[in-house]
Amino acid sequence: MKYTGELKVDSALGVTSPKGFRAGAAAVGVKEGSDELDVAVLACDVEATAAAVFTQNKLCAAPVLVCRDHLGKRAGVRAVVANSGNANAATGRQGLADAREMAGRAAERIGCAAEAVLVGSTGVIGHLLPMEKIRAGIDRAVANLAAGPGADLAFARAIMTTDTVPKQAGVQIELAGRTVTVAGATKGVGMIAPNMATTLGFLTTDAAVESPLLQDILRRAADATYNCLTVDGHTSTNDMLCILASGLGSEGAAPMAAGSGEAAALEAAVTAVCDCLTLQIIDDAEGATKRIEIRVTGAATDDEARAAARAIANSPLVKCAFFGEDPNWGRIVSAAGYAGISSGPETMRLALGGLVIFDRGAPVQTDQTQLKAVMAARQIDVHLDLGAGAGRARFLTCDLTYDYVKINAEYTT
Amino acid sequence: MKYTGELKVDSALGVTSPKGFRAGAAAVGVKEGSDELDVAVLACDVEATAAAVFTQNKLCAAPVLVCRDHLGKRAGVRAVVANSGNANAATGRQGLADAREMAGRAAERIGCAAEAVLVGSTGVIGHLLPMEKIRAGIDRAVANLAAGPGADLAFARAIMTTDTVPKQAGVQIELAGRTVTVAGATKGVGMIAPNMATTLGFLTTDAAVESPLLQDILRRAADATYNCLTVDGHTSTNDMLCILASGLGSEGAAPMAAGSGEAAALEAAVTAVCDCLTLQIIDDAEGATKRIEIRVTGAATDDEARAAARAIANSPLVKCAFFGEDPNWGRIVSAAGYAGISSGPETMRLALGGLVIFDRGAPVQTDQTQLKAVMAARQIDVHLDLGAGAGRARFLTCDLTYDYVKINAEYTT
Repeated sequence: MKYTGELKVDSALGVTSPKGFRAGAAAVGVKEGSDELDVAVLACDVEATAAAVFTQNKLCAAPVLVCRDHLGKRAGVRAVVANSGNANAATGRQGLADAREMAGRAAERIGCAAEAVLVGSTGVIGHLLPMEKIRAGIDRAVANLAAGPGADLAFARAIMTTDTVPKQAGVQIELAGRTVTVAGATKGVGMIAPNMATTLGFLTTDAAVESPLLQDILRRAADATYNCLTVDGHTSTNDMLCILASGLGSEGAAPMAAGSGEAAALEAAVTAVCDCLTLQIIDDAEGATKRIEIRVTGAATDDEARAAARAIANSPLVKCAFFGEDPNWGRIVSAAGYAGISSGPETMRLALGGLVIFDRGAPVQTDQTQLKAVMAARQIDVHLDLGAGAGRARFLTCDLTYDYVKINAEYTT
Repeated sequence: MKYTGELKVDSALGVTSPKGFRAGAAAVGVKEGSDELDVAVLACDVEATAAAVFTQNKLCAAPVLVCRDHLGKRAGVRAVVANSGNANAATGRQGLADAREMAGRAAERIGCAAEAVLVGSTGVIGHLLPMEKIRAGIDRAVANLAAGPGADLAFARAIMTTDTVPKQAGVQIELAGRTVTVAGATKGVGMIAPNMATTLGFLTTDAAVESPLLQDILRRAADATYNCLTVDGHTSTNDMLCILASGLGSEGAAPMAAGSGEAAALEAAVTAVCDCLTLQIIDDAEGATKRIEIRVTGAATDDEARAAARAIANSPLVKCAFFGEDPNWGRIVSAAGYAGISSGPETMRLALGGLVIFDRGAPVQTDQTQLKAVMAARQIDVHLDLGAGAGRARFLTCDLTYDYVKINAEYTT
């Protein structure tokens, strides 16, 4: 993917790869009838600078409210506590009290202020958390805090819902003569649609960076990756992407300045990790059999490019056609057509896998054998040039399949 | 449905029920490998006043361009010619020439100006019309123009694509002591999403009404019915809803004035017919097993209510849950949450089939047996009260099923 540039992203690296982080997890039955891990704690040995982006859903979940509150009170964070199997969303006052109790209990066990703990939840909406299980889970997760590949994977597994594989990635870069690491874990794989942040993502780094700069870096990285991702167009109530920076890999280095080469290098690394994590989400998207990368260029503005790319990515008709390996490109150009773009078909050009099939308002004869091969591939590149300006955008999505319907008709009750 | 009021809508009435209209159809293989009807002509014995609303898709199809052109030149219409099996969209200059030729040929056979003919096409996007077949179809359709139930059904059948049943409806009302009829035919049942008009709909009436008033009536009726309908959120390139008024049922009556009781009665009748037609579309929606009626009340504005209703109606997660008969209401309130509404969960109330399950931010204990019965029904009423104002909206949609995926993964090539 283009955002990685020269960076070598490694999915063997995880949240404890940067210096100063430990993770622990426990299986306590929040995922009912399951013995899978469902409570996780990520702790930093020192006070980490932190940044986060959250869902824009009006119905944001209790853990999101608690995180916003805590980050407003202090920039330093010592831990994140998370659970899967229950979103603690649409749960009213009791839900808020429960989210606060999660932070408070983790803080007590770790030995820090409750406001230094962030909380994340994911799973079904509208059910109160089973707090006895959660309490036991937090205690056990803190008790087994450790660094290393086992702890990384346990953390990544404990935040999974309908995910079939854990998702993590990391990258190492040189900053002012020191090797620093950026890593993260995330989950998918339904109720995924871009709006500031999507799904849960927890990033760590041992770079030394102040909170305002870290927030800028995270916002731009999320905008280029997580916010260009859609499985089903449904923006979750619990979306949260956060990054904790321990500073322990840059000890003795001068503070990083906004606009510096170091800041750019760190942003590239954070973006590369986010990009790899979002690809892992798409590749594990509910029921998906294909990864679809949509590029829109030549739009009047970047916003128009993004609107067109999003409309294509969210159209069930487009997604079903890809599942059927049917080059029904009329659905793609017509989706762009209702996205509110200012240009018309007379300047449009569409290519699938590099094969042009629609040019300036009219169909183009294409080699059907080649086109069939493009449609049969696991990854399909869609390039729509609107021929009207310099605006561009990229979106990642997947196909819509029987299994998506099956998973979401049967999930929950 | 509420819009019908006291009106008795009758699906035995069709496009030729109003005085002055005749219809004809032919099967000429535009639908490849099929012997189903695919070309239709609707003719009026006199010059009818006409009104129409069209797709807002930037990539609007050639027949839409031709209709806009013709209606801009003259208000009087003598005929509509339509085909299924090919949308004549994204077909460039040749497509535009073909659409003009359709109008011209029908005009010649009927004996009127080409500008007095409207054109509608529906089917696959991006293929040139097979004009030899189309020409033969127009000739045969004009040759068998007739009035009566057989002609009505032939017309309704000839505009079907993935529809499994023809869709028509009519109503009779008294206007100034005379009985006038409003009737129509429409088709669905995929690429259906509201934006001014949706799908193809052809209405006829023998009321006497001038074009500007007719256009106002049609616009409001479409807004209350067709524009509150979604199967898959994908606004077609060919959407068109038109009405022709022969005036032959009101001969001798004084001209109808805007704001008069007669105009209100006619609008109620047009709305009732549109409402019945949209219900037929939903009930035949691709792969659907359930009709979902979504009412949003208590919104800050009608626009917010509509945005929330549309987001719920378009969410694949909501639609899959209904297919699975799973009362996973968190998906409903969270869809409203990302629709850009200004109020939050603390004033929200959600009822499914009259059973309140979410109230002011928190879940409500509900009788599970009753809830199960609600979810098992063929029609499910969703009522979301935002508790923030007087804005309201209604949307119709259906569930998302294996068969929707099957139909749209296999349609076309």
